Amino acid sequence: MEFDLIEYLRKHNPVQRPDVLQGIGDDCARLRVESGYELAVTTDTLVSGVHFPADTPPHAIGYKSLAVNLSDLAAMGAEPAWVTLAMTLPRADMAWLASFAEGFFGLAERYGVQLVGGDTTQGPLSITVQAQGFIPQGQAITRAGARPGDYICVTGFLGEAGLNLLKYKGGDLAITTARNRLNYPEPRIIAGIALRGIASAAIDVSDGLIADLGHILTQSGVGARLTLEDLPLSAAMLEDQDPAKMYELALTAGDDYELCFTIGEQHIERINQLQYDLKLPIKHIGNIQENPGLRIYRRGGEPLEIASGGYEHFSDKRHG
Amino acid sequence: MEFDLIEYLRKHNPVQRPDVLQGIGDDCARLRVESGYELAVTTDTLVSGVHFPADTPPHAIGYKSLAVNLSDLAAMGAEPAWVTLAMTLPRADMAWLASFAEGFFGLAERYGVQLVGGDTTQGPLSITVQAQGFIPQGQAITRAGARPGDYICVTGFLGEAGLNLLKYKGGDLAITTARNRLNYPEPRIIAGIALRGIASAAIDVSDGLIADLGHILTQSGVGARLTLEDLPLSAAMLEDQDPAKMYELALTAGDDYELCFTIGEQHIERINQLQYDLKLPIKHIGNIQENPGLRIYRRGGEPLEIASGGYEHFSDKRHG
Repeated sequence: MEFDLIEYLRKHNPVQRPDVLQGIGDDCARLRVESGYELAVTTDTLVSGVHFPADTPPHAIGYKSLAVNLSDLAAMGAEPAWVTLAMTLPRADMAWLASFAEGFFGLAERYGVQLVGGDTTQGPLSITVQAQGFIPQGQAITRAGARPGDYICVTGFLGEAGLNLLKYKGGDLAITTARNRLNYPEPRIIAGIALRGIASAAIDVSDGLIADLGHILTQSGVGARLTLEDLPLSAAMLEDQDPAKMYELALTAGDDYELCFTIGEQHIERINQLQYDLKLPIKHIGNIQENPGLRIYRRGGEPLEIASGGYEHFSDKRHG
Repeated sequence: MEFDLIEYLRKHNPVQRPDVLQGIGDDCARLRVESGYELAVTTDTLVSGVHFPADTPPHAIGYKSLAVNLSDLAAMGAEPAWVTLAMTLPRADMAWLASFAEGFFGLAERYGVQLVGGDTTQGPLSITVQAQGFIPQGQAITRAGARPGDYICVTGFLGEAGLNLLKYKGGDLAITTARNRLNYPEPRIIAGIALRGIASAAIDVSDGLIADLGHILTQSGVGARLTLEDLPLSAAMLEDQDPAKMYELALTAGDDYELCFTIGEQHIERINQLQYDLKLPIKHIGNIQENPGLRIYRRGGEPLEIASGGYEHFSDKRHG
């Protein structure tokens, strides 16, 4: 089964990079890294029934399997370059593959990413992507650089993917047609690159703000204070839905793939300007503190009880 | 489930390379490529019930999932450096993981390979490894360099993994205990590196000699002639079994992960010497010809009918 599918992907690959000496078709791809750059590498798997409902259209699966990996590159400030794709499919279905490839390559083309290797096997549907990108030496944004007093910021809106998931579970959203944030998160590549030299720490919000900001706090050895009403909720979310429930989604739902990052106070003006340059809202939601732990307050000062939260896959209940 | 498993792997990682600026634990790993080298990248997935019987011990699954990827690097003449590991497991079973890690890291340590990234998800058992290595610029051994007159050679013995598989299917080999070629193929890394500047083309025999040599012939635009009795069969295989059946295994069974390569006639003496340097038998099995296609003869000149063969996964019959 392998040859036809890989050959299809090779032929439909829209990006040809000069640093790819040899792409798909031999035992390995051969790649060139310019001197002065570090290589950033990440890998993520999406399993049908765990990371996406089984009836998710192949176009969305193709898009999202690449997007979640590009999002990890964005969180380091890396510029994406190459990806490999390992697909396990129940059967060789060319119509399915064509739609998958359209979603995958559509996103790849937007960011100049070339598919350089692949493997296809027969089995339960599962997609593993490995993505690589470049960071100028010494300019990586890690999770470990947040310092007391730093401002905590978030790109875009939170809870949108979580709301989509709720609607899907409630039968109010047809996963097969909706072009929504759950299926089509936007990897914040441009923002991540713009934050080099500005952000002291960054992570992408894949598992929910509490869980992901928690990684920054742990790895930086600091704590934080957030104000609930400062969380970036879209006007539509606040108008149509119960606000308390929406703030809970913003704190605990995953899959938004926005960037959560910290900056020293001296960079606040640059961040304000960046919103206009990037046409992307960036919200200050709280501050880093010396005392470990995450404290969330309502506006007015009432502390919020935090459930141990984090990412709830749509099928968590089945997994015990 | 992710954190504990990845943390376990991070802690038990036996190799720390100076070119790994940052390993497991952030959004991406950060890696340094020395100037003067190309990066070789490959990825392979092993699915339970397809690439290994479901009762294969986790130690063997860990070993083999790395070995098949290192084998692809070997076939390019690359020196392995870094791997990422995406595991989909039915449940978080620490005893299973410990045994898997022992097999995986045992091999990684022998070749100085560092695990730099990972992802664990819940689902049907499946392992995707992506491996990267270095090749001095311009010294890669591809599949496309074979020329008429070149000698075709194979390392080690062929058909051993195929015989193991036959015995397993027949109930004569307990997959759970045997430390055999099917479960523990040896990636020919040292041989691959030694063949830089000597081999005109190379591939690893993962899908069977006919299929894999076929890739060299197609991509080099040439044909070949083999003599059946020149195929490297171990003495044990020839003594214990029906020779005709064993030669068929050597031609069509997969999973041996020996190197099949071509050399110009002027290098024959170096190959003979290499056997002693590497303590690895290398057998001349035929020659490249201008006329496309693969022709196999019995000693004496009788042509052999070739089935369209190739890799028979142990469960092919189930896959229709």
